[in-house]
Amino acid sequence: MSGMPTVDDVARAAGVSRQTVSNVLNSPEIVRETTRERVLDAIDRLGYRPHASARRLRTRKSSTIAVRIDPWRDGISGIVLDRFLHQLTEQADRRGLRVMVFSADDHADELARIRRLREGSDIDAFVLTATTHDDERIRALTDQGVPFVAFGRPWDPETRAVPHRWVDVDGRVGVAAAVQHLRAHGARRVAWIGWPHGSGTGDERRAGWEAESGLGDRERASLSRHTEDGVTEGTRCAGELLALAEPPDAIVCASDSLALGAMIAARSAGLPALPVVGFDDTPIAAAVGLSSIEQPLDDVVAAALELLFGPTGDDVRPNPSSDEEPAHRLLAPRLVERRPGHLALDAIPGT
Amino acid sequence: MSGMPTVDDVARAAGVSRQTVSNVLNSPEIVRETTRERVLDAIDRLGYRPHASARRLRTRKSSTIAVRIDPWRDGISGIVLDRFLHQLTEQADRRGLRVMVFSADDHADELARIRRLREGSDIDAFVLTATTHDDERIRALTDQGVPFVAFGRPWDPETRAVPHRWVDVDGRVGVAAAVQHLRAHGARRVAWIGWPHGSGTGDERRAGWEAESGLGDRERASLSRHTEDGVTEGTRCAGELLALAEPPDAIVCASDSLALGAMIAARSAGLPALPVVGFDDTPIAAAVGLSSIEQPLDDVVAAALELLFGPTGDDVRPNPSSDEEPAHRLLAPRLVERRPGHLALDAIPGT
Repeated sequence: MSGMPTVDDVARAAGVSRQTVSNVLNSPEIVRETTRERVLDAIDRLGYRPHASARRLRTRKSSTIAVRIDPWRDGISGIVLDRFLHQLTEQADRRGLRVMVFSADDHADELARIRRLREGSDIDAFVLTATTHDDERIRALTDQGVPFVAFGRPWDPETRAVPHRWVDVDGRVGVAAAVQHLRAHGARRVAWIGWPHGSGTGDERRAGWEAESGLGDRERASLSRHTEDGVTEGTRCAGELLALAEPPDAIVCASDSLALGAMIAARSAGLPALPVVGFDDTPIAAAVGLSSIEQPLDDVVAAALELLFGPTGDDVRPNPSSDEEPAHRLLAPRLVERRPGHLALDAIPGT
Repeated sequence: MSGMPTVDDVARAAGVSRQTVSNVLNSPEIVRETTRERVLDAIDRLGYRPHASARRLRTRKSSTIAVRIDPWRDGISGIVLDRFLHQLTEQADRRGLRVMVFSADDHADELARIRRLREGSDIDAFVLTATTHDDERIRALTDQGVPFVAFGRPWDPETRAVPHRWVDVDGRVGVAAAVQHLRAHGARRVAWIGWPHGSGTGDERRAGWEAESGLGDRERASLSRHTEDGVTEGTRCAGELLALAEPPDAIVCASDSLALGAMIAARSAGLPALPVVGFDDTPIAAAVGLSSIEQPLDDVVAAALELLFGPTGDDVRPNPSSDEEPAHRLLAPRLVERRPGHLALDAIPGT
């Protein structure tokens, strides 16, 4: 740092006092224009850089947002949050915002890390992802006055009662549109493979199927399966469904992992043309030619940043204190339709 | 900020001067233990938080590293860098380091953003990824005295002459091991599908095949293809190879995208059992049961952080000024062997 010009060097070069240099940097409106020009010239000429920490100390603004990233999983389930991070980084960059990432084991650990990040640095706002039932983060950060936006809606009445900013994608609408589409193309018995009850996201997606399936209670019970996420789980559930006396003629799944499994089961059962729809339009879906429901992550990120910082700029707004103004956005997903096996599996003889 | 306790509040509560509070925070060794305890008690009781910018201003250390993340691509090719980022974040967290991410269009843009990040904040070190031939970043950051480590070795003599820290995975060794393995299991004509000449990473991987193929010049020319990355490109090249009068009995590829394509072509040609090996062990490989060469990203990240900060801690070391001490690590990848079609494709009748 020894060779770097100091504020004294600038003051000397411009023939003004240190205080004047400081004023030019921090309150330029109180400095006469000719003086200001002279100081700015000296700053340019010398290559003086006001120390960033010092500047942030004065402005009390860091223009930094932080987001937790989860441990790497199978590259299917968690991948939507990787795409989210890429979008967040690009859009934040365009606003001049910096993005910090951190890891955490669970919600309690995430809150502890947020506390430490706030103590150890100046972060304007946090982005929470993957909200759950009884999500303790919402109430805690609101109580602590930590500005944040959640990607994921509040799933329980208590959390809904906390006025806070959130953006989510309407999984119900996405699945409903897929089921409508399948029925418009002749499907009469659209089955559902989803997650165990109690996952907000999963229940919403299932509700879209339930609303549009056109099936009675008994048929819905027969044509739905609930399981942990995974390819083998999807294969197993779809295998059961296809072994029914009255099997489904299409299957919609809560995830691409389940859908890939269902696709394999359908081919196994000699039904390579059975329509299967997944969720999240992961790379797997594109590679094996699986239709899938895509979350508009560019719009999700744009909405999240707008709720935090307004249409432009990097001045964080305080957390909403009441629900008067719209503090959330619910966006519609999009069905990406692919001919089953278009890319990868069509080429396989016998399918 | 109005309700937050100040250093004056702490001083008053502890019955000491402001200076003593400051000493406890910044040079605790010069404060008597009983006084120190009293001040620390007051800090705890009042919940006083020394302003982070102020503290960083004093210590001139930010404990922050920054890494560029690229725009989202197909979820196959770029995914190794996502896994890298997950590892980096987890391991940095464990050292108490913060990780900042930013986006850039190309190397020149990356350098500009690094400059801006340095001006707008205090970042201890940068992590470069995906080094290329004539990588202008290495020389520029070295000249500017910006501490960095590269994930990726220097690919040209000029860059090799710049003493700098890097970590890389030995693709040549990985591919050579895969070819040896295939030949040990009976393959006599192992083909190669890789990228156009001139990509450092691709040429290294090809060299591993070349060294271990046991083929003559003419056979190697016949049994190798070079193409842009992609599934359809892999299918096309493998289709050509399998149509030869003397076709290959195994195919090794520079990427999982190419390998997935080769797998499809093999099945198309009625050769579902043809061994195909990809690179990077992406989620696609696991899903379709493709063997692949895995980069040990946990070790890569550990080595990168050790080169920057030493075995433990968060004090960044200056860039190496000569090549005397080992400033780089070349790690060996690992072959992940899967029965072709184990998970996904075995279930498909006729394969």
